Amino acid sequence: MNSISSFAELATHLKDVNIRRRMVVANAVDNHTLEAVFKAVDLGLIEAFLIGDVASIESPELFEHNPSPYIHIIDIPEVHEATIEAVRMVKSGEADILMKGLVNTDVLLRAILDKEKGILPAGNVLTYNAALEIPNYHKLLFFSDPVVIPSPNLYQRTAMIKYAIQTAYKFGITKPKIAMIHATEVANPKIHYMQDYLDIMQMWREGEFGDVIMDGPLDIFLALDKERGSIKKVQTPVLGDTDIAIFPNFESANIFYKGLALFAGAQMGGLLQGTTNPVVLTSRSESIDSKFYSIAMACVLS
Amino acid sequence: MNSISSFAELATHLKDVNIRRRMVVANAVDNHTLEAVFKAVDLGLIEAFLIGDVASIESPELFEHNPSPYIHIIDIPEVHEATIEAVRMVKSGEADILMKGLVNTDVLLRAILDKEKGILPAGNVLTYNAALEIPNYHKLLFFSDPVVIPSPNLYQRTAMIKYAIQTAYKFGITKPKIAMIHATEVANPKIHYMQDYLDIMQMWREGEFGDVIMDGPLDIFLALDKERGSIKKVQTPVLGDTDIAIFPNFESANIFYKGLALFAGAQMGGLLQGTTNPVVLTSRSESIDSKFYSIAMACVLS
Repeated sequence: MNSISSFAELATHLKDVNIRRRMVVANAVDNHTLEAVFKAVDLGLIEAFLIGDVASIESPELFEHNPSPYIHIIDIPEVHEATIEAVRMVKSGEADILMKGLVNTDVLLRAILDKEKGILPAGNVLTYNAALEIPNYHKLLFFSDPVVIPSPNLYQRTAMIKYAIQTAYKFGITKPKIAMIHATEVANPKIHYMQDYLDIMQMWREGEFGDVIMDGPLDIFLALDKERGSIKKVQTPVLGDTDIAIFPNFESANIFYKGLALFAGAQMGGLLQGTTNPVVLTSRSESIDSKFYSIAMACVLS
Repeated sequence: MNSISSFAELATHLKDVNIRRRMVVANAVDNHTLEAVFKAVDLGLIEAFLIGDVASIESPELFEHNPSPYIHIIDIPEVHEATIEAVRMVKSGEADILMKGLVNTDVLLRAILDKEKGILPAGNVLTYNAALEIPNYHKLLFFSDPVVIPSPNLYQRTAMIKYAIQTAYKFGITKPKIAMIHATEVANPKIHYMQDYLDIMQMWREGEFGDVIMDGPLDIFLALDKERGSIKKVQTPVLGDTDIAIFPNFESANIFYKGLALFAGAQMGGLLQGTTNPVVLTSRSESIDSKFYSIAMACVLS
């Protein structure tokens, strides 16, 4: 398998693989969610189980335009109950992927995290791993975590890196290059997160992360641009060729992708990880494309 | 005065004002620094005093191509001494602006911070304020602090905001709109910096910052894009029209501007603030343009 270096290549790859995953959506009533789901059904990526309040579907005519034996509607008007049922279907093996529709993130997270009925194995770290397609960057950039963990500790960061590596493998990247990002490449343990970076580098040297290339702290220039990075005359094996960017905290990851989404035309797909099955959790303000890319990512990972 | 909304307008404004500021440069020997200085001299913005190790000038021929009565060379081969002399000239009033050439930032900062001979008044906060010109954003975006203060406390952040407001006034912005940026607009005092944001909002309501508009926490979409911001249905008076972005910490500010420099063609100028006089401190990897914009910013502020 060649590595997948764009969302277009991802869609083509999934069509070639030709396996329909079963995806359950908690309260799929808004247009963006439905259009992304229908696109994934049309391309043969998924069979969709839409659980929720049928009466509150924003545009019922969408269903007339997209009739399909692979779309099933289950009417559970109470959103909280619908969410619990969606999680139950994943846990029981009736569905492979869970997706959030028009549900408060809190409600979905509570259902996922429930010790008895949820889908987060004890001891697993719940985090968010995303893929960013930036025009003028030569491949997809995976990054963590723009949403879930405000200030990762060493244990959480280690888990985050391992999930991202597994994701990169599924995209056919045989030896991913990982950059731990900060404001500067000068390691100063007095500055927040830097000691964790140094510890993780040591763990990497000892083989904890397998056959990957890792460096950090690195700034954005060193991680993502050979030319601007070279001016610094800093030696790093990931120079301008990073596959996975690990950000210090959720605000810097969030600020990074939103800036590039607004002003560089960057597109994002992303998933909750740490759960038994991939969870598509995008915010209401994400585009149809972004929701579709997230579904496609979930298909590769399930 | 109309407000200055791009670096081109800034250069035009300074030509119209037609006041030559006296700028002293510590060890101006590298080409990027010299070319930026010569450009500012040619446009009538500055008279330059170049103090440093003449023997180590990268391209002496640059001086032949740029002869000018407004360029003065002072040979002090020892860089540390040259830096101290440059700071002395500013302190004594012989120069209006200080610029860093090929000197380690540590050496320059030590000279600036020296209690007797330095130029940081006791009690002042030293921070970095920058202006970013982003294609597709409709005006300059001022922001703090990508370089100096890793993790600002309430006192430092308050000072940072006040410097940025003064800068915006000098650019002719009569009522600057200030956004305190985070991953989300939902204020949660348990998340780092959020309590400071809430305290600063209260100070703003009580008039501490004068006649400005302020909101925070806000995410990048709300702060910088009316369309993407509107989807969230959050009311904010700065929606998509921010003049000043205050970032939570130096890594998020640094990651923001470097991402946009690489992938959105953004250009930056920036200055140290808190000192008695503006200090141009750019890194070796900054472009000639970026160094020139920083000099121009210093001229407006002095």
